[in-house]
Amino acid sequence: MPLDPSAVGSKGEPVETSWNSKDALLYAVGIGAGTDELAFTTENTNGVEQLVFPTFPVVLGWGKGSPMRNVGTFNPAMLVHGTQAVTLHRPIPVEGTATLQSEITGMYDKGKAAVVATSTTATMGGEPLYTTASSVFIRGEGGWGGERGPSGPKNEPPDRAPDHSVTYQTSPDQALVYRLSGDRNPLHSDPSFAAAGGFDRPILHGLCTYGFTGRALLHTLCGSDPARFQHIEGRFTSPVLPGEALTIDMWETGDGEAVFVTRVGDRAVIDQGLLRHT
Amino acid sequence: MPLDPSAVGSKGEPVETSWNSKDALLYAVGIGAGTDELAFTTENTNGVEQLVFPTFPVVLGWGKGSPMRNVGTFNPAMLVHGTQAVTLHRPIPVEGTATLQSEITGMYDKGKAAVVATSTTATMGGEPLYTTASSVFIRGEGGWGGERGPSGPKNEPPDRAPDHSVTYQTSPDQALVYRLSGDRNPLHSDPSFAAAGGFDRPILHGLCTYGFTGRALLHTLCGSDPARFQHIEGRFTSPVLPGEALTIDMWETGDGEAVFVTRVGDRAVIDQGLLRHT
Repeated sequence: MPLDPSAVGSKGEPVETSWNSKDALLYAVGIGAGTDELAFTTENTNGVEQLVFPTFPVVLGWGKGSPMRNVGTFNPAMLVHGTQAVTLHRPIPVEGTATLQSEITGMYDKGKAAVVATSTTATMGGEPLYTTASSVFIRGEGGWGGERGPSGPKNEPPDRAPDHSVTYQTSPDQALVYRLSGDRNPLHSDPSFAAAGGFDRPILHGLCTYGFTGRALLHTLCGSDPARFQHIEGRFTSPVLPGEALTIDMWETGDGEAVFVTRVGDRAVIDQGLLRHT
Repeated sequence: MPLDPSAVGSKGEPVETSWNSKDALLYAVGIGAGTDELAFTTENTNGVEQLVFPTFPVVLGWGKGSPMRNVGTFNPAMLVHGTQAVTLHRPIPVEGTATLQSEITGMYDKGKAAVVATSTTATMGGEPLYTTASSVFIRGEGGWGGERGPSGPKNEPPDRAPDHSVTYQTSPDQALVYRLSGDRNPLHSDPSFAAAGGFDRPILHGLCTYGFTGRALLHTLCGSDPARFQHIEGRFTSPVLPGEALTIDMWETGDGEAVFVTRVGDRAVIDQGLLRHT
């Protein structure tokens, strides 16, 4: 049964989600933060106030309130994460409760695949806290004669060497720590499950790579201050294996704007990257 | 004011503590378990039942129900962990609720220091689950004319090369993950706090080293089966820095009995080690 493009505009159940200091610390170590980042990895360092990484919203309310069921039934093993954006209206507090509302914002027919775009808006005390937007690619589900949707170059780096480049080593056990923040998909931990998906071994969560990338942007372009980090977006282009080193290349392209590419060696793993900051 | 040796036999408040699968997984990654130990680091690997490391009791009910206040007031910065034992009456389930009862079991006067021994008994559904016993060394608090307590050689390795030797690398960020299981003492994370204690940088939790040691014993001598791991004891002799490699030397000394030493290079960090197992 094909997907139902009339699902665009439909919403998931509103979800209330709470987090605390420990959740933020666990996320921080999950995306590789360490002893040089004690504001993010500790809550009781003398003279240091605990802060929350700006990409933390991608794990809040994990798996709840999704509107994806509205688009119809499909094989979840055929789904891959396409793009992810996070827009922060203010810094994420160390603890809190927010109401999340998700919506299907677009469905595109790529012929042999479908793209489904969703957004989630989080409010706290009635005020907007953040908005996330993501798209997934579902192989085998296109062909309903719908629009192909946006394509073509986006957030392309200028034709020069990066203005900044940061390399972070992921650990062989990175996915085992990251998954404790919510995404328990065995693709990232179970060798037999990964093999069934065509991978030699479990792959790192794309959103873990995304978190490493956000750390590099925050420290390099926002002076490590989450209040200066306004928006991040990027497209997942290739899987990463736990233990690989991630290099984040950054180009300052305008006032408070930078484009970036995250790569493993010569292989781009996140491209079309954009940061907006103050 | 000197410590009060009449505190021996006194008890702390009974404490009810609960844990779940995620707590056990977080403890597992905190003591360095990884992709070769999916029974301990994942809950949804195909054909693998989640298991709990036998040293997990050392973090259960962390900081609650301690009878240490009964011994009098002292400077907690002068306290160091001396010995630790864990006796398992049955394997720790992946989730549960237990009642913990702690007791001061001994106080010894070393002249320039005091040793205070405590035990904690955990029951679950009225049945014994485990018992832990530990002693702490409090510098500057001896001199009340009490007994010096037990001393001398204990659990000494035989005069031959170890029968088994396992080396595990700790990560520079090991303490930042381990502390999320309960012990937030800034000695293990805050450089200024560590410096005030006379350390060049934050030191690893002794009980994290203990957990690495238990892993080595479990995998080497108990076929990775927690049901075969009955008792572990050892004495902390030297601090470990995050990032150092731990080598656990084991000697099989009798039927179901082994002694061990954990070292960093030539420096013993846990000695007087004993494992009882089936």
